[in-house]
Amino acid sequence: MSQSLLQRLHSEIDRIPIVDSHSHVPGPKPTATSLDDILGYHYYTELAHSAGMPKTCLEPGFEPRERCRTLLEWLPRLANTAQHSWFVRVCRDHLGYASHAPTRADADFLFDSAAKVFNAAGWEQELWKRTKVEAVFLTNDFDDPLTGFDTRRYVPCLRTDDLVFHFHKDEVRARLAKATGIDRRDGPGVREAVGRLFKHFISKGAKACAISLPPDFSPEPVSPEAFGRALESNEAGNPDRQNGLFWMLAEFCQDHQLPFDLMIGVNRKVYENGVFQGQDLFDRRTSLLQFRKLFNAFPKVVFPVSVLDGAQNQELASHAWIFPNVVAHGHWWYANIPGIITRDLRERLQAAPLGKLVGYYSDAYKLEFVLPKFAMFRGILSRVLAEDLVEPGYLTEEQAVAAAVELLNGNARRIFGFTG
Amino acid sequence: MSQSLLQRLHSEIDRIPIVDSHSHVPGPKPTATSLDDILGYHYYTELAHSAGMPKTCLEPGFEPRERCRTLLEWLPRLANTAQHSWFVRVCRDHLGYASHAPTRADADFLFDSAAKVFNAAGWEQELWKRTKVEAVFLTNDFDDPLTGFDTRRYVPCLRTDDLVFHFHKDEVRARLAKATGIDRRDGPGVREAVGRLFKHFISKGAKACAISLPPDFSPEPVSPEAFGRALESNEAGNPDRQNGLFWMLAEFCQDHQLPFDLMIGVNRKVYENGVFQGQDLFDRRTSLLQFRKLFNAFPKVVFPVSVLDGAQNQELASHAWIFPNVVAHGHWWYANIPGIITRDLRERLQAAPLGKLVGYYSDAYKLEFVLPKFAMFRGILSRVLAEDLVEPGYLTEEQAVAAAVELLNGNARRIFGFTG
Amino acid sequence: MSQSLLQRLHSEIDRIPIVDSHSHVPGPKPTATSLDDILGYHYYTELAHSAGMPKTCLEPGFEPRERCRTLLEWLPRLANTAQHSWFVRVCRDHLGYASHAPTRADADFLFDSAAKVFNAAGWEQELWKRTKVEAVFLTNDFDDPLTGFDTRRYVPCLRTDDLVFHFHKDEVRARLAKATGIDRRDGPGVREAVGRLFKHFISKGAKACAISLPPDFSPEPVSPEAFGRALESNEAGNPDRQNGLFWMLAEFCQDHQLPFDLMIGVNRKVYENGVFQGQDLFDRRTSLLQFRKLFNAFPKVVFPVSVLDGAQNQELASHAWIFPNVVAHGHWWYANIPGIITRDLRERLQAAPLGKLVGYYSDAYKLEFVLPKFAMFRGILSRVLAEDLVEPGYLTEEQAVAAAVELLNGNARRIFGFTG
Repeated sequence: MSQSLLQRLHSEIDRIPIVDSHSHVPGPKPTATSLDDILGYHYYTELAHSAGMPKTCLEPGFEPRERCRTLLEWLPRLANTAQHSWFVRVCRDHLGYASHAPTRADADFLFDSAAKVFNAAGWEQELWKRTKVEAVFLTNDFDDPLTGFDTRRYVPCLRTDDLVFHFHKDEVRARLAKATGIDRRDGPGVREAVGRLFKHFISKGAKACAISLPPDFSPEPVSPEAFGRALESNEAGNPDRQNGLFWMLAEFCQDHQLPFDLMIGVNRKVYENGVFQGQDLFDRRTSLLQFRKLFNAFPKVVFPVSVLDGAQNQELASHAWIFPNVVAHGHWWYANIPGIITRDLRERLQAAPLGKLVGYYSDAYKLEFVLPKFAMFRGILSRVLAEDLVEPGYLTEEQAVAAAVELLNGNARRIFGFTG
Repeated sequence: MSQSLLQRLHSEIDRIPIVDSHSHVPGPKPTATSLDDILGYHYYTELAHSAGMPKTCLEPGFEPRERCRTLLEWLPRLANTAQHSWFVRVCRDHLGYASHAPTRADADFLFDSAAKVFNAAGWEQELWKRTKVEAVFLTNDFDDPLTGFDTRRYVPCLRTDDLVFHFHKDEVRARLAKATGIDRRDGPGVREAVGRLFKHFISKGAKACAISLPPDFSPEPVSPEAFGRALESNEAGNPDRQNGLFWMLAEFCQDHQLPFDLMIGVNRKVYENGVFQGQDLFDRRTSLLQFRKLFNAFPKVVFPVSVLDGAQNQELASHAWIFPNVVAHGHWWYANIPGIITRDLRERLQAAPLGKLVGYYSDAYKLEFVLPKFAMFRGILSRVLAEDLVEPGYLTEEQAVAAAVELLNGNARRIFGFTG
Repeated sequence: MSQSLLQRLHSEIDRIPIVDSHSHVPGPKPTATSLDDILGYHYYTELAHSAGMPKTCLEPGFEPRERCRTLLEWLPRLANTAQHSWFVRVCRDHLGYASHAPTRADADFLFDSAAKVFNAAGWEQELWKRTKVEAVFLTNDFDDPLTGFDTRRYVPCLRTDDLVFHFHKDEVRARLAKATGIDRRDGPGVREAVGRLFKHFISKGAKACAISLPPDFSPEPVSPEAFGRALESNEAGNPDRQNGLFWMLAEFCQDHQLPFDLMIGVNRKVYENGVFQGQDLFDRRTSLLQFRKLFNAFPKVVFPVSVLDGAQNQELASHAWIFPNVVAHGHWWYANIPGIITRDLRERLQAAPLGKLVGYYSDAYKLEFVLPKFAMFRGILSRVLAEDLVEPGYLTEEQAVAAAVELLNGNARRIFGFTG
């Protein structure tokens, strides 16, 4: 392939402003305040721990600067990973770091630099500009008041894992009662309460309902009687309760024309002694066919679907190809590495209408990570468009750049109805 | 890789005449008569529908020219797909279209051009020549009279999905009775009837028995008693009936030395409101291990196997590597896109004897699609041979071209016993 | 990518001495004595048989020279495969063969050359040097006396398939009794016997306990009562017996700080009439999640994991990323071809700490195959490091070579505690 074609495309694609359709950035405090916020990202703590780092430095009382020194001591063991490259970009782009292999010897410099840079006046605006981001979608607990941030830039999304999978816990029901003023456990009562959540979120500009699902989840409708009994049950994992609540969420999405973001395939707490957020894995024995009833029952609801196992990508591409209401959504978590993204993106672009693909989202916990993660994706996207579409003569360079605009921005806006 | 090596190989491989070992081309009317026949291909109707096109234009009464205008209005939404590239080649190769991005504005020109070109005297012969095809295998219903076409060029294949999966329907049994003169529902009676089908097909030059199978199909022999009872049952999906009929087909294949073409992994009518032929998907929770009894029980029957999920390709390559009677057959349907073909072809070529691989088949419904689909494959094959076999010094260029001849023609001839 | 970068890296990586952490080389007679030993490798017999070769030439009484002639007659049918390339390298590197496409016409030359070369004084030392190998791990039956070879170069490993899956056979229990002097079938008795095996192996420098597992194996602890009953049972496949014995092995690994090498996913005797060692296949419906209890229960035991299905690689990379005690181990059997290795290596390097990856092992049955198999891997490794790590600026060339040293040597030494 012509290097100059690739360079031209990459240079154009680097300029495209993005809409980040899924993140865990906290609206009221979206940026890091210290290097500890950066190195505390679970990717680094779990990889360092996997490489041999004891968990003691991760305890709450541990001194942050010393924690960063410790993590940077272990970081060279991850120097081969994509996750490491994100950290290096943060250091190079913002912290005045000039090399590629940070070590414990760089800890104090980076820590001090981060304290200065991240806490300077206007850092959020500056970072927003450097990142070329137009909107970041959040992940909000169902009882989040959604105050303290600009919902036209930080877009609320109703995250519903707790409702569907932890409703049997007193604490979750108490949160629901407090958030809605409805303290009931019967079908109609729960429906009324959840309806209030939707109204609250919609009123604050929420653009999606979202949930992560275990590999064996296979949703189906439940009779009102069975649902009522299941709501009273305290049994963890009661399928009627989970199915009934999930189905109810889909009904509310339909009523409110809200996309229902499905993140499919995670098993929680697989590594029991793992670090915080570093315990989950997956089981590849799962299929999108488990969602056939759902996709058929709600033709008006758009389902942006993420899969955790890249080997499920052909299922996702094929479902986006056939079902008008299924959208292939980004590259999630364990599948968010260049080798897998390249393959998955290629197969989606070759198989499904462009408008059915949201290219990427950051899944970031701090705004600082949106830039390096999207930078990785911009590079991959440039190469795939150059090799697969421009070189064979299917698209002109201009058309390829226009396609990139859709993948990085336009499709997310249209699919989620975001007009900010 | 040296571009000139790739170009030389591609140029040689473009000249190789092909045998297309699986298609849905209708023997009596193999070519299109209008642009509507081209754009009516389910790939375009289902992708356009998935991209948002309402199904109204697909209703039988809808005016064909206006339908083509509508489909071409939506086609730019698929401009990124491999399927779109096939349509562009049809337009460019035959219809005098010079660009790469047909739109509604091109509809009348293309419609009129197609009407002229496709209905000109000698079009079939001309297309045959342009396609460099020596034989096209058909998909014939079990009660097809197999008349009205030259069976030395259009090779009959006995398609048996109806027999195995719909025998409980009165209509299917009535068709069987009519085709064979045997109106029985007991084991020996059904065997006699099916035997007549095989004799009829063999007498017409049939070269394969073929069937598509759902992901959970796991064939095994059934006792005569259980089979007899199952044949009387009207229950859809009765496993004894399906297994008994399937096993009987394998026995007839053995008796008649007919390859048994297995197309593994499709779930029918998953998207219930999909367009015609645009409703099927798959479940990746399937394994070729489900066929171990079959492959062992019929060592003399050759099983050309297609899989729907590219992630099953290593199973297929490994089975072709170990079982003398398992052949890896083409790249089917949802796996028929360049990214997946490249990976699957590479892994097959690196793992299994060349003679165990049939490179490609078109799966086309009209002869016009054989050329663009094989053109796509010729390009991929050239690259894989260049990169994997010639560049590392394993094969000379001449040997690589000879391998391509086997993959595009020779292996299909030998495996299916086609000598036309 | 710059060809000169690739060439420089490849040239450096070709010089790195290796530790081969899994093979079937027999300690007392590690090298071939004839061409028959080379062509008798199951890869050639099974691929030739799959390509059509009758099994008669493989019978014990068949004359070895004539057997080699026959195999070489069929070998051109496999000229496209990776396995064929290993044979060509053996011929070119050691036997004075100058071409790339050996046929029956070369049989006598190769046979005579092999007889001379392989039986020359000092061949083992010479081959050892050419291969640049520092240690080869063996696969030893549990009752192997472990004598007759230098255990600092040929590292014993306790292979335990027979114990776990065939304990119900009188012959296996008789072997255990003979090897340990303990002839008991109750829980404590069996534990005492197995304990003696571990002590014997440890005393001989064993560095791993190893086992291959079927796809449906899902280990969990068993109560002493259930285990005792199961040990008395003669039922093949009794899950309590298999689980109890497997769990006991893990406990002994913990006691002796011995890595427990898991080779996951093989179904035995799938092709019932296959050649010797050419009967096994796999079922992709398996997940590493089946091992969650094990990985959690034994945090001090290192589990080097091999998977048979490349499509399971993301699970493996992700488990090595999260679990400190899970190591991604080489590229096994049906996944040991360049296309799959490239993809799997890339995804592991991008996702898991370098120290959690053992790059490659030969799985060879004769020392002659260690060189060509590692040569294949060295080439792939050079390319992946160049493309993924050096070109994007993540690692310098020197750092990439240092990473290769870990993947080819250092990690295996550290993980298996080999200091020879």
